Amino acid sequence: MTASPDYQAILETIAAKVRPLAAQGRVADYIPELAKVPADKFAMAVHTLDGRRFAVGDADERFSIQSISKLFTLLMALRMKKETLWQRVGREPSGNPFNSLVQLEHEQGIPRNPFINAGALVITDVLCRHFVQADRAVLEFLRRLSGATDLNFDSAVAESEAEHGYRNAAMANFIKSFGNLDSPVDTVLQSYFRQCAVRMSCQELATAGLLLANHGTVPASGEALLTPSEAKRINAILLTCGTYDAAGDFAFRVGLPAKSGVGGGILAILPGELAVAVWSPALDENGNSLAGAMALEHFTTLTGRSVF
Amino acid sequence: MTASPDYQAILETIAAKVRPLAAQGRVADYIPELAKVPADKFAMAVHTLDGRRFAVGDADERFSIQSISKLFTLLMALRMKKETLWQRVGREPSGNPFNSLVQLEHEQGIPRNPFINAGALVITDVLCRHFVQADRAVLEFLRRLSGATDLNFDSAVAESEAEHGYRNAAMANFIKSFGNLDSPVDTVLQSYFRQCAVRMSCQELATAGLLLANHGTVPASGEALLTPSEAKRINAILLTCGTYDAAGDFAFRVGLPAKSGVGGGILAILPGELAVAVWSPALDENGNSLAGAMALEHFTTLTGRSVF
Amino acid sequence: MTASPDYQAILETIAAKVRPLAAQGRVADYIPELAKVPADKFAMAVHTLDGRRFAVGDADERFSIQSISKLFTLLMALRMKKETLWQRVGREPSGNPFNSLVQLEHEQGIPRNPFINAGALVITDVLCRHFVQADRAVLEFLRRLSGATDLNFDSAVAESEAEHGYRNAAMANFIKSFGNLDSPVDTVLQSYFRQCAVRMSCQELATAGLLLANHGTVPASGEALLTPSEAKRINAILLTCGTYDAAGDFAFRVGLPAKSGVGGGILAILPGELAVAVWSPALDENGNSLAGAMALEHFTTLTGRSVF
Amino acid sequence: MTASPDYQAILETIAAKVRPLAAQGRVADYIPELAKVPADKFAMAVHTLDGRRFAVGDADERFSIQSISKLFTLLMALRMKKETLWQRVGREPSGNPFNSLVQLEHEQGIPRNPFINAGALVITDVLCRHFVQADRAVLEFLRRLSGATDLNFDSAVAESEAEHGYRNAAMANFIKSFGNLDSPVDTVLQSYFRQCAVRMSCQELATAGLLLANHGTVPASGEALLTPSEAKRINAILLTCGTYDAAGDFAFRVGLPAKSGVGGGILAILPGELAVAVWSPALDENGNSLAGAMALEHFTTLTGRSVF
Repeated sequence: MTASPDYQAILETIAAKVRPLAAQGRVADYIPELAKVPADKFAMAVHTLDGRRFAVGDADERFSIQSISKLFTLLMALRMKKETLWQRVGREPSGNPFNSLVQLEHEQGIPRNPFINAGALVITDVLCRHFVQADRAVLEFLRRLSGATDLNFDSAVAESEAEHGYRNAAMANFIKSFGNLDSPVDTVLQSYFRQCAVRMSCQELATAGLLLANHGTVPASGEALLTPSEAKRINAILLTCGTYDAAGDFAFRVGLPAKSGVGGGILAILPGELAVAVWSPALDENGNSLAGAMALEHFTTLTGRSVF
Repeated sequence: MTASPDYQAILETIAAKVRPLAAQGRVADYIPELAKVPADKFAMAVHTLDGRRFAVGDADERFSIQSISKLFTLLMALRMKKETLWQRVGREPSGNPFNSLVQLEHEQGIPRNPFINAGALVITDVLCRHFVQADRAVLEFLRRLSGATDLNFDSAVAESEAEHGYRNAAMANFIKSFGNLDSPVDTVLQSYFRQCAVRMSCQELATAGLLLANHGTVPASGEALLTPSEAKRINAILLTCGTYDAAGDFAFRVGLPAKSGVGGGILAILPGELAVAVWSPALDENGNSLAGAMALEHFTTLTGRSVF
Repeated sequence: MTASPDYQAILETIAAKVRPLAAQGRVADYIPELAKVPADKFAMAVHTLDGRRFAVGDADERFSIQSISKLFTLLMALRMKKETLWQRVGREPSGNPFNSLVQLEHEQGIPRNPFINAGALVITDVLCRHFVQADRAVLEFLRRLSGATDLNFDSAVAESEAEHGYRNAAMANFIKSFGNLDSPVDTVLQSYFRQCAVRMSCQELATAGLLLANHGTVPASGEALLTPSEAKRINAILLTCGTYDAAGDFAFRVGLPAKSGVGGGILAILPGELAVAVWSPALDENGNSLAGAMALEHFTTLTGRSVF
Repeated sequence: MTASPDYQAILETIAAKVRPLAAQGRVADYIPELAKVPADKFAMAVHTLDGRRFAVGDADERFSIQSISKLFTLLMALRMKKETLWQRVGREPSGNPFNSLVQLEHEQGIPRNPFINAGALVITDVLCRHFVQADRAVLEFLRRLSGATDLNFDSAVAESEAEHGYRNAAMANFIKSFGNLDSPVDTVLQSYFRQCAVRMSCQELATAGLLLANHGTVPASGEALLTPSEAKRINAILLTCGTYDAAGDFAFRVGLPAKSGVGGGILAILPGELAVAVWSPALDENGNSLAGAMALEHFTTLTGRSVF
């Protein structure tokens, strides 16, 4: 590992380029609480393994991490279950929208990967069996990784999701019908909706992501939460499955393992070097932050750094 | 780039470990010519950007590259068409077996990526419009990249494929019905079957693959055939789509961009460092070389090197 | 209408032929209550429009009508909604198992027909909006049509279905996610499970079916519940969709509009002449009564009567 | 069988009602020869078993029967193969457009029924194995049934179909890949395209259809080509599968076994009574004659006759 370059100028260049793009996207509006977020918010933060931090825009403002939580719940479940986890969820890209039930039917209740909603529900079920309050456990884990002890759920978002979450309820019941859910459907759904409703800033996400850049060890504490092999494998799943049905295109354009959420956040990893978080609430047709994805594309182009 | 380590001992360790696994796989037998290849053949070759070559087993024996040819035809087509190529073929993992027609119907004749058969037929069509004899052009390109001027087609294999190639014929006609094939169906199929029937050794494949390890420039000649950005993007497609419906699992286990073929070969790339080719004819249920994939998994584990 | 023949001898011939077939089928066992029914039960009843009744076997013993209820809830919903009903449910055969979610996804929450579970849930929702207690209304309707004022639900069956009904819950939530369910998911499911758990005998079912043989008018009372055109149309849907994914085969072999249930009952109609109900609990692989379908095939062969 | 009513007035009423509807449909234009037919053509002919004939419009003008030929090739194949035919083709409605390959893949090359294109190709293959010139044999059969000894192919239509028939070629190759086609793909396709290109008038079709109204016996000659049971079964398949993906709706609205073609013809059967043919070239979105289907709907409504 050589010393990391000064990314500040690059972040500012990127911010100037991509901010206008938000106007071409569309803020998630399937629940009112998400629709309220101003479309012109933008933030980007880079944290390196040698301890430097760079940021631009509203990088300390928290937003709803939504599906980015799936990355952290996967980490938790993998630590408990090790390789046996893969008996209950696959690790192949889905080739279908993230909330499709079709594939689940063909594959008899084994979700294709942990980052589609069906897979995340199975992962949540793993946590629900292990913790009395799985949602609290996830929150504690995120506080620990980010160092932000005041992270919390947005209860209004969680409740709104629960009220409109018929498709997730369909999915959970469907998985249960195949015998791949141990806890009661409602228990799993409530935990899932609350995990998705955690609010974090780009700075906090970038810090939390360093674990994966650092081969499984939290840089701040030296704790080895994952083996290097496990960290490598999670990065692989991020790359092939982390950005919904656009993972191929995202790998093509950006070339970094990443997880996106409909709150407009994306967390990406450059193994051995850094974690980078970006936030812009307006989404493209695949549900990924439009300006956020473009910001990451510029980042790998301008720095010449990607996994490829 | 630091000096590459001495991979010879590692290759020998791997060979000893994985040779016995071939007994658990199954040599492709859908055409008699492929079925004749002894299941116990094994070879592995590593060529580094700093000019070192390591090999174990039958690394100079040629075998049918089959779908590995799809990587090189993609390179050729991308050089001609640049970004416009992606109007005719996607770059998303398919989530379906490599010769499925289902997805093609849903997506109106635009194959999901250039590495499923449907996509490779469209790529071949691009070559057929540009070259009087596309198959010869592909052969010349492979000779040039590998430095082996006597590379050739195995005509018996090509003819046998043509005789049994009803599913490929179905696919080509289907794509044509959507207007995404310019040349006559038979022209495209004949060229496709011949490209797949080129015979190369692991040593030759590893040399040919260096181009992609070297960001688009042939190390031997200094020729920049692709821009660094194009090379990065092809590596991304290899990682997400290069190993049929098992790309997610392959990325998870191996963590290298790679392209496999039913002849039992796999060519993998470690960007910035090396290309590695492996050959073992017995396949797993996804059509990838069983011992070959395991050899690559050991390679990244033992060297601690992967893109993640 | 000429005087109906004496069907008694025919029913006895049929009973002798088909009773042994039950051994080749399998009693529904997805809930314990249904699994308890002895596989060797058999009954058949023919009621003609000129007032004659023929029966063989346990024709006065009640069994769980299950999906045969879907015919009667359709009648009720059609009477209320007339042609507007078809905006919420189609009338095409499904080409898929009766509880598939795949088609529902492709068709955006509009079930293919009222006799697959998804369609019956939408029909139940129609009833739930109209009646304070839809299940009681269905029960009253069945009592009125059959003349059996003591018909009732089997609460143990209904509760058992509710406890194991994850797939139906998945379906109801999925339909709700497309906006095609007005009442709360649980309200619709509870009513649906109770309607399916009504117990009726072959004699009672045959009487209830006469309405459809008699072009919409209840013979006993002279009440015109449906227009002749509506009755004809329901017969058409029965023929094309009434026996799960085997409707084509059933039409081919039997040639009568019919509705089957997993309790082993089948109600069939010969328009202008008669209704025939059969019961044998052991099912074929499509979920239709094995001996029951064969009994109806013999019936149309021996009498030379079918709609074709 | 009572004496048939005088249908002439009814046909004239129908013609007046439905002729204007043709403006809402669309003449098939996927090959130029079909697109040339004037959209305002209309004809309807009713032939009864007691020897009466009624007609309105251009009932002696021939048109391309297209998929109506599938009914007659099925008759021929069923006579040869009897029940063994159903090992190679199913008899279930497809739930998918008539030229879909998706279902064929799921069902491993066994088409769902003989009236989707895939099924008709398998039926044609049966004929190709039995006759040196299957297309001539079909033509002779149609001449014999219709009594019109000068029936012929429209070679321009057949050749045009062959030139544009990529989807049928895809299907035939696909079926061949599953081993469900004995003859060479091109042989089957050529015969298929020629059979579809036979030209017949409504009068000729109605006469040919009497066989199925008359339980398998040609009324004019007394020849029993099918057993009553076979005739009944073919009527059943017509009802459940004869009008593409709209068979349910057609049964609902019309209530007669029928086969349609993209040339705008429909042949329908009222078993025991009559055959009725209608022609209007403008099609609805399912590929059925728009005014033709409406004419048959009026026919069953005005006469009060249908199979239900």
